[in-house]
Amino acid sequence: MQIIRTIEEIRQWRRSHDSVAFVPTMGNLHAGHLALVAQAKQAERHTVVSIFVNRLQFGQGEDFGRYPRTLEADAEKLRAAGVDALFVPDEAELYPRVAQQYQVEPPNLQNELCGAFRPGHFRGVATVVCKLFNIVQPDTACFGKKDYQQLVVIQGMVDDLNIPVRIIPVDTGRATDGLALSSRNQYLKPEERAEAPQLYRSLQAVADTVRGGSRDYAALEEQARRGLASRGWQVDYIEIRAAGSLNTARVGDKQLVVLGAARLGGTRLIDNIEFSLED
Amino acid sequence: MQIIRTIEEIRQWRRSHDSVAFVPTMGNLHAGHLALVAQAKQAERHTVVSIFVNRLQFGQGEDFGRYPRTLEADAEKLRAAGVDALFVPDEAELYPRVAQQYQVEPPNLQNELCGAFRPGHFRGVATVVCKLFNIVQPDTACFGKKDYQQLVVIQGMVDDLNIPVRIIPVDTGRATDGLALSSRNQYLKPEERAEAPQLYRSLQAVADTVRGGSRDYAALEEQARRGLASRGWQVDYIEIRAAGSLNTARVGDKQLVVLGAARLGGTRLIDNIEFSLED
Repeated sequence: MQIIRTIEEIRQWRRSHDSVAFVPTMGNLHAGHLALVAQAKQAERHTVVSIFVNRLQFGQGEDFGRYPRTLEADAEKLRAAGVDALFVPDEAELYPRVAQQYQVEPPNLQNELCGAFRPGHFRGVATVVCKLFNIVQPDTACFGKKDYQQLVVIQGMVDDLNIPVRIIPVDTGRATDGLALSSRNQYLKPEERAEAPQLYRSLQAVADTVRGGSRDYAALEEQARRGLASRGWQVDYIEIRAAGSLNTARVGDKQLVVLGAARLGGTRLIDNIEFSLED
Repeated sequence: MQIIRTIEEIRQWRRSHDSVAFVPTMGNLHAGHLALVAQAKQAERHTVVSIFVNRLQFGQGEDFGRYPRTLEADAEKLRAAGVDALFVPDEAELYPRVAQQYQVEPPNLQNELCGAFRPGHFRGVATVVCKLFNIVQPDTACFGKKDYQQLVVIQGMVDDLNIPVRIIPVDTGRATDGLALSSRNQYLKPEERAEAPQLYRSLQAVADTVRGGSRDYAALEEQARRGLASRGWQVDYIEIRAAGSLNTARVGDKQLVVLGAARLGGTRLIDNIEFSLED
């Protein structure tokens, strides 16, 4: 596996490698990332992973500074997984100007769900992914469904700006107790870690109740929020939306997703479940 | 010359043609465009021209509806000039959704100079050029210096979003009396056409005075504005800026550009002159 630090070198690498699948990450890799890598390896002949903790998508007071950086262990995992190139630009390489001047501006979805609690987050995500796509020029890129809204924003950007990259969504990896794998799980204290799967369970309960026939989405969302709050969570949102688009779920929509974000102590966790209604 | 109407077909064409130079236009081609084509032909082995009147860059009350559309004559000129492929997507091809959802947001320069009089114009330009670059995937693209601010915005977008396209700026084509070639010149009545070169002359006078030693830019700009106004022009702006960046010109800047935009009757004309100061 080649470790590449500059845009010039990765472009040079790209010129001599066709059929490239790309997995952009912020590092601190876990089994969820390795599932993305496995999908990438199935999709194309060569696999590039990037590790870049993107300041642009962190808000003031968020965990940019303490986000776990574990490059050596990450590289070892990727080498073992058979990745061909690891792209690890530093900040001056991706943001050489004082500030990023030109940004990709997503539509109003960027201000909903997680975006309502993380102003500018999805603009920062879209912009860095656009840059990385332009640098790596992959044929395919893999994104996890755990960051569902991110996936919808990336797919929307690709469609709307005609970016010549195929997006493959990859199912969320979970611990045996259901907790979605996330680099932020390691912030959890032992008692928080024990409580953490409750977010997934709450979303499951909402999905099950809707599948069971209930259509009062607002009441179900409120019930889930109150249930988590009563157990000590600070709930950002629990929402039922149309799958794929994240539009407001309407009566008659058959493909749905229930999404949640909530904080345990200082740690913000997100999760979601896609589900279908039978006719 | 192949005439190509769909994204799928131009991408297919691209896969079998390397070394591609691209000239995006809104059609109604004149000698200025053909100078861009000539540069494109020198730069790469193959040349693609696009014709697309981009609604996104026209404001309310602007001339989107009456912008001259002359596809047959245009195609004839491009064929004669040795262009390899002409890409003419319709609106549904480039904007299949109700609205363009994801846009390229330029920095505050988009609200200055022409941007102050055409809100959203440069966002629309940057977005469609980003889309066209992603569709055509050229190695090189040619843009005229006549639309100087547009050129600066495109170059900034390419740099900042790491778009793998080399931009070649091409000098402004002019009529023998100095008027910058523009599709909008044909809106001019005969007496307006006779007056039109005065914009260029005013900019020349400003540049000459600065080269002659004057440094009171504000006074020179005001004098040029008043001179044009006294001849019946409605002046949007006359400004001296740093060449290349379009930053505010500072004492000590040696590479300058004086830009102007002014209306004669219902026709808005723009022009500019780059010039250097000797030490």
